[in-house]
Amino acid sequence: MKAVVYNGPRDVAVKDVPDPTIERPTDAIIKVTSTNICGSDLHMYEGRTSFEPGRIFGHENLGEVVETGSAVQDLHQGDMVAVPFNVACGTCENCNAGLTNYCLTANPDPQVAGAAYGFADMGPWSGGQAEYLRVPWADFNALRLPPGARDKEDDYVMLADIWPTGYHATEMAGVAPGDTVVVYGAGPVGLFAAYSSVLKSASKVMVVDRHPDRLALAEKIGAVPIDDSKTDPVQAVLEQTDGKGADRGCECVGYQAHDPQGKEQNNLTLNRLIESVKFTGGIGVVGVFVPSDPGSPEDLGKQGQAAIDYGKFWFKGQHMGTGQCPVKRYNRKLCNLIAANNAQPSFLVSHELPLTKAAEAYQHFDARDHGWTKVVLKPHAQTTS
Amino acid sequence: MKAVVYNGPRDVAVKDVPDPTIERPTDAIIKVTSTNICGSDLHMYEGRTSFEPGRIFGHENLGEVVETGSAVQDLHQGDMVAVPFNVACGTCENCNAGLTNYCLTANPDPQVAGAAYGFADMGPWSGGQAEYLRVPWADFNALRLPPGARDKEDDYVMLADIWPTGYHATEMAGVAPGDTVVVYGAGPVGLFAAYSSVLKSASKVMVVDRHPDRLALAEKIGAVPIDDSKTDPVQAVLEQTDGKGADRGCECVGYQAHDPQGKEQNNLTLNRLIESVKFTGGIGVVGVFVPSDPGSPEDLGKQGQAAIDYGKFWFKGQHMGTGQCPVKRYNRKLCNLIAANNAQPSFLVSHELPLTKAAEAYQHFDARDHGWTKVVLKPHAQTTS
Amino acid sequence: MKAVVYNGPRDVAVKDVPDPTIERPTDAIIKVTSTNICGSDLHMYEGRTSFEPGRIFGHENLGEVVETGSAVQDLHQGDMVAVPFNVACGTCENCNAGLTNYCLTANPDPQVAGAAYGFADMGPWSGGQAEYLRVPWADFNALRLPPGARDKEDDYVMLADIWPTGYHATEMAGVAPGDTVVVYGAGPVGLFAAYSSVLKSASKVMVVDRHPDRLALAEKIGAVPIDDSKTDPVQAVLEQTDGKGADRGCECVGYQAHDPQGKEQNNLTLNRLIESVKFTGGIGVVGVFVPSDPGSPEDLGKQGQAAIDYGKFWFKGQHMGTGQCPVKRYNRKLCNLIAANNAQPSFLVSHELPLTKAAEAYQHFDARDHGWTKVVLKPHAQTTS
Amino acid sequence: MKAVVYNGPRDVAVKDVPDPTIERPTDAIIKVTSTNICGSDLHMYEGRTSFEPGRIFGHENLGEVVETGSAVQDLHQGDMVAVPFNVACGTCENCNAGLTNYCLTANPDPQVAGAAYGFADMGPWSGGQAEYLRVPWADFNALRLPPGARDKEDDYVMLADIWPTGYHATEMAGVAPGDTVVVYGAGPVGLFAAYSSVLKSASKVMVVDRHPDRLALAEKIGAVPIDDSKTDPVQAVLEQTDGKGADRGCECVGYQAHDPQGKEQNNLTLNRLIESVKFTGGIGVVGVFVPSDPGSPEDLGKQGQAAIDYGKFWFKGQHMGTGQCPVKRYNRKLCNLIAANNAQPSFLVSHELPLTKAAEAYQHFDARDHGWTKVVLKPHAQTTS
Repeated sequence: MKAVVYNGPRDVAVKDVPDPTIERPTDAIIKVTSTNICGSDLHMYEGRTSFEPGRIFGHENLGEVVETGSAVQDLHQGDMVAVPFNVACGTCENCNAGLTNYCLTANPDPQVAGAAYGFADMGPWSGGQAEYLRVPWADFNALRLPPGARDKEDDYVMLADIWPTGYHATEMAGVAPGDTVVVYGAGPVGLFAAYSSVLKSASKVMVVDRHPDRLALAEKIGAVPIDDSKTDPVQAVLEQTDGKGADRGCECVGYQAHDPQGKEQNNLTLNRLIESVKFTGGIGVVGVFVPSDPGSPEDLGKQGQAAIDYGKFWFKGQHMGTGQCPVKRYNRKLCNLIAANNAQPSFLVSHELPLTKAAEAYQHFDARDHGWTKVVLKPHAQTTS
Repeated sequence: MKAVVYNGPRDVAVKDVPDPTIERPTDAIIKVTSTNICGSDLHMYEGRTSFEPGRIFGHENLGEVVETGSAVQDLHQGDMVAVPFNVACGTCENCNAGLTNYCLTANPDPQVAGAAYGFADMGPWSGGQAEYLRVPWADFNALRLPPGARDKEDDYVMLADIWPTGYHATEMAGVAPGDTVVVYGAGPVGLFAAYSSVLKSASKVMVVDRHPDRLALAEKIGAVPIDDSKTDPVQAVLEQTDGKGADRGCECVGYQAHDPQGKEQNNLTLNRLIESVKFTGGIGVVGVFVPSDPGSPEDLGKQGQAAIDYGKFWFKGQHMGTGQCPVKRYNRKLCNLIAANNAQPSFLVSHELPLTKAAEAYQHFDARDHGWTKVVLKPHAQTTS
Repeated sequence: MKAVVYNGPRDVAVKDVPDPTIERPTDAIIKVTSTNICGSDLHMYEGRTSFEPGRIFGHENLGEVVETGSAVQDLHQGDMVAVPFNVACGTCENCNAGLTNYCLTANPDPQVAGAAYGFADMGPWSGGQAEYLRVPWADFNALRLPPGARDKEDDYVMLADIWPTGYHATEMAGVAPGDTVVVYGAGPVGLFAAYSSVLKSASKVMVVDRHPDRLALAEKIGAVPIDDSKTDPVQAVLEQTDGKGADRGCECVGYQAHDPQGKEQNNLTLNRLIESVKFTGGIGVVGVFVPSDPGSPEDLGKQGQAAIDYGKFWFKGQHMGTGQCPVKRYNRKLCNLIAANNAQPSFLVSHELPLTKAAEAYQHFDARDHGWTKVVLKPHAQTTS
Repeated sequence: MKAVVYNGPRDVAVKDVPDPTIERPTDAIIKVTSTNICGSDLHMYEGRTSFEPGRIFGHENLGEVVETGSAVQDLHQGDMVAVPFNVACGTCENCNAGLTNYCLTANPDPQVAGAAYGFADMGPWSGGQAEYLRVPWADFNALRLPPGARDKEDDYVMLADIWPTGYHATEMAGVAPGDTVVVYGAGPVGLFAAYSSVLKSASKVMVVDRHPDRLALAEKIGAVPIDDSKTDPVQAVLEQTDGKGADRGCECVGYQAHDPQGKEQNNLTLNRLIESVKFTGGIGVVGVFVPSDPGSPEDLGKQGQAAIDYGKFWFKGQHMGTGQCPVKRYNRKLCNLIAANNAQPSFLVSHELPLTKAAEAYQHFDARDHGWTKVVLKPHAQTTS
């Protein structure tokens, strides 16, 4: 089959690779019909992780069940499914507690909890930017979609990662009706944190970024855009909140945060959040941070450390939740909103492309080129281009 | 009246000062019969804060109501009360939400939420290491004690701060029955975090410190003592938890943390906690951290920053709560446990001393002298010494 | 001043009564500019309670502060305030826990917790269907409104009771984004339970009633109307939810529930909810039920009992919350939504009338006359009628 | 193999039945070494349910894994396991939400959620009062026990149902440190609700029953025994709580509740709880109630209805949780407490008997014979009797 393979820093290619097969009785094979490029793919794409050449990208996957192992009970051929990016066994202590983001079984490294498709340090699982994908513990992992799913693939594919991840930021921050919320980062996950806040009836949602296309999307979904290349975002948030700071804050940028001049500072958004959020406020951090980052321009950063305004954080009595999203905690209810036409997360999609255009898409998305807000690859698209 | 007054770094004295009076109709005056020296007093005592010479220490106060303002309804002369260290108005948005630790009214500095008696940056309120104390918004702030309180003053006085503060660490960390818990710091607040964990039926409570008297107390209340001058505490915790790390962690040391050799590192306990606590675990931080610390030996520390192992924190998906304790959230229920003889927090008391011995007591407690685990001052004790 | 006084069953009149005065230093007097008639007023109006002739109605009040006691700090003359229907002291154990609906002080009956303005069994407090109202513990009870409040009185007055009460039903039921919700009763509180569910991004909200005007309003705010005079509502809910039942249910009718033929059955909506809600689902009950009801046509009802399908309730593992709403828990955040133009609860208002039209308004509202969905009385309106 | 088979009302016998076999790749077979008789077995034993003659009893099972299906990954031969009474698939919407008590797959009746071993209306699963037991979805359902489990079987077997069920009552009621708690019923589940409350540091636990042996056990674990054959239990609770009522209440009797004279009233304990628990208090109901009960002496009871003091329940603003316990939510943490020697739930065991004595044991336990508080059957015991 065809698959998007990592060759090395900023080098991906569509290659022929062996088809996946049922390896365990709980596996299923899905024919991938929609698969997104994610902002977290870019950390690997840029060579800032341990991702090995030869591996297949892709952890935001949707498709049709084409084969099931002998122990699979809930899924059947022809079912349309959205596949959470987390690979989870369903039976370990963490999965039992709903912490599928930190499954104790799916990652063979005993020092690490949590696994994902096509991801550095997250186990050996191949990604789904390919024609087919093997889904382990398929009954547990795959979410069956309601009738008509084929007509809304660009909505439902957002359930695999990016919408639940944005939603998770708002849950960790504690967003409730009437709250004011500030989101740092208007990439896909930041926009979904904002979108989730709007759906939860926040009274005001502020989104900080510097790319006009992204800020325009933020405004379109009901948020107040703040351009940090033109204004001090902390001051802007304080002004928008009668000087008190936002009730809740979401970090949706991660360790490669940089200022408008391009200088990378891994503590930039975290410290701005501590300043932007009120005393007693909550902060949810879904932007990726890594335990060691040899490519960091900062000494602290190389060791995975950040210079946090910890005294201020403590003095303000704030709290912070972090980490990857347990997609299964949210995907059923968010799926209901799509099915009921109460949410259209495809608002974010700028490009639907055949798999063959993957290299080009990575290049544009990595460069934050204007208008490339979200790419959905269609591995089985009939294409003449 | 007599009161313990701050003269300057490591210099306190008992002086004559004016008696407090009813200034507002919601005030009450209490005759202080028990008042503790707290570990957080030592930050001020050592001159590491903006605490002004001439101010009166003391935020862990218990006593008898002797006078009430015209609007006081619930309190009456002769009532015995434990007074939370937080000064809170009872009617602002934060007090309404139970966040009396971050009252928006009681601190005249509009940039700061939260107030306390006898505390740097926490408003003008005089402390209770004195014969009398003015309690503002007295109906809201003072907790009336049950009959027989005079016979258990050393238990009930712990409700003013130190037990609720230790308890708060366990609440923010999320301690529940069956959990494993690690507490860094076996000073009074650390011992109360451990004691609270035991009362909540944690399956194992580990306490890290290096003072034999404190570790002995930890063991006495049912915890596993870990001496970090003799062993790597992170490894010790991992060994005690089958390599997984503790379910929950409590920081009870604060920004003046130092290694056994005496080198101060404000990130020491925080980074050890991140290592000691499991993936997905919770951390509660009640040790004090400050937004700026000119006396810090570290450049980051001077600016209130700490070099946090943030990449590891995020990668493990941990969460962290911080800040001062909202004493009113816990003091009634903890009071019930004392009244029912289900808890005896006076286990910590090493010294009952008249107010006149305050200077000596500060000196010993500040030096962590062996056996000085907790001092209760008795401003009205009949004393011949 | 003029006030709406209860004479006896189905008999109210606007009479001259003494002006309220500051009785305690924590009191304030407000000039009432908007005051609603509530569905719970009708229980008293109909003579089905112990409400005494001569008492003044009115617990949904909004107005301007005109006088404050000596201990009032937060309120000032000219402030516009919405007054929660609960009278609460702010300092008792329940108020401290946020349970202002069950204040232990404000009701002089030691057997009863909770108090309200102009309400049977809820203490001696006069109602606000009058030109002026005395608000006790005014700093604690009155919510100051943002600038521009006078232009949106019909929105803000809904914060006194009816919107928070509908919201409380959804909180007790556990409504979260993506849930399906069924609401029994499309009177004001039921419509606000539905409105709150929509704001929380429920995936489907179903409202059961039989009055076309109310059902039309339900549909207008985004709910599915179900007419129980034409269809079995339980079957209708099951059909709307793939046979599973709604995730959450809200009871907004109360003990005088009756079938479309007018036969009163106090268990009608409760048992329908147990059937309509899924296994494990939550039910919030804000419709009023009373400990004794001599006027009930049923023997059980006379003693305050109801024949509940308890076996089914338990077998389905449902949970239920009940009681009056703690308005202060919700009113600030809901206020924010009005101020931000994210909610317009005045959608419900069918009539703005001067106080002098109160008797007529009661009559129409009690008869559920078509189009009388909610009446706001304006005690200080310039009127020529 | 030998198994305890139901013949009809009050008639059980140990019979030869076919050995269970692996039917699906996710099954495991365990050799049952300890299996309890449960109070809920008695409803079936007495013929008050639809339990069919020929079925095997037993849902509190512990044993050794002897065979596993091809898809079982976590369990291996020789593992000691405690098996939750709930049969749950691990992959349906409810199991994903932690609601294994209401699995949507394991019960073939589409109208019913939830399944159990050897239980009326809870699916076809055979019980474990037998030499061997088939455990479906074994990785998900069976809890592996720590080393040394064979030495504490009478402790660990309590994890299968009765301790988590008692614990669940306290969770639904909301028991927290410092609370007062009343438990109705001192059968095994009631004693475990009391034991759980003590472990959670309730300030006072009151247990209502009338059997001296049970009340003595209640007292032994730290509760206040209340004999309702000698005193009005509601008055007794009010006296123990300064007239306020208990903060929390647990119902551990169920629909066959009867007064000391033996008159059955299915609403007896529920209405006493409503009276015994304070305004705003929580009630957890784990005693079994059934949707229809043809054998009830009461007309309402026959239809599964109960005459609830609903007016009082609502007026007091209480809340209530109901239903079977999701054992998996609690069993790991409670297991930790046993392993750490912080809990010894075997305190309840009065009799260890070989399987051959089952009929006799049922007879004594059903008769509440003095001293028969809990029976553990040992199907593989070497016995000469």
